[in-house]
Amino acid sequence: MSRIVMGIDPGLNCTGIGVVRAWPGKVEHVYHGVIRTDSKKTLPERLGVICEGIRGAVDEYKPEISAVEDIFQSVNIKSAMLLGQTRGAIIATLLSYGLSVNEYTALQVKKSVVGYGKADKEQVRHMVEVLLGMKMGKSPLDASDALAVAVCLGLEITGRRF
Amino acid sequence: MSRIVMGIDPGLNCTGIGVVRAWPGKVEHVYHGVIRTDSKKTLPERLGVICEGIRGAVDEYKPEISAVEDIFQSVNIKSAMLLGQTRGAIIATLLSYGLSVNEYTALQVKKSVVGYGKADKEQVRHMVEVLLGMKMGKSPLDASDALAVAVCLGLEITGRRF
Repeated sequence: MSRIVMGIDPGLNCTGIGVVRAWPGKVEHVYHGVIRTDSKKTLPERLGVICEGIRGAVDEYKPEISAVEDIFQSVNIKSAMLLGQTRGAIIATLLSYGLSVNEYTALQVKKSVVGYGKADKEQVRHMVEVLLGMKMGKSPLDASDALAVAVCLGLEITGRRF
Repeated sequence: MSRIVMGIDPGLNCTGIGVVRAWPGKVEHVYHGVIRTDSKKTLPERLGVICEGIRGAVDEYKPEISAVEDIFQSVNIKSAMLLGQTRGAIIATLLSYGLSVNEYTALQVKKSVVGYGKADKEQVRHMVEVLLGMKMGKSPLDASDALAVAVCLGLEITGRRF
């Protein structure tokens, strides 16, 4: 009995999507990718591109549960507002499919996947590759971060800690 | 030839919705209301309530165009992030209906509706009541702010400035 899990690393310029299949005791890679937006477009246009990308991935991989990385910190109020709007648009899109949306901070994801809350993005990518038994090549770090979010939720729902 | 216009004043605790019918030279009241969320719920649950409320109003009043108040200022990064997520969820929901989403700052709305960018919320409500020929009674100020956003867009698309 397995479940398809989607993890999202939200970002207005680049949002990462990771999909895994979680079995009791193991997590398998299904998909990873990123959605990029054009900074010359208006904010609603950019959010529209992100929502469309999320819908495409949900339609394709049919996740049964999802998680979106939570962000508490931001450089300044303007960037907090932009990141917040991106995250809110993603959550709304996932909810529109009736998916439950879980939240993990970067600290929780790193502790779960790397075992160390201060791990950097390269370490996260390395452990994602080890846990999923694959190589990510030149994929952006946003894609490995999103897979890490999916792995974190997958580990939690199958009750196994690697 | 008239068009139904929806204006939204986003807020995690209380989001205002205003709907007007814009004719060349006049703007008529159609609906106003607010969506409140329970601060004890999780953020995705609260965003879900807001999205459901927006969908209910769109299904009922079938706007042809929409506008969401833009926010540049916030007390701190945490509140900017929460308000941002609320606004992003609302924009995603409107976009999912294929609606175009316009953005006005509070300054633009006040200049359009009251003629004075520093008007307070009571003055905005007063002018909304005058322009739409109705009384809002004890409705929350978020509802009159949302109507003001709708009036602002309605005036712009019908090319008339009161």
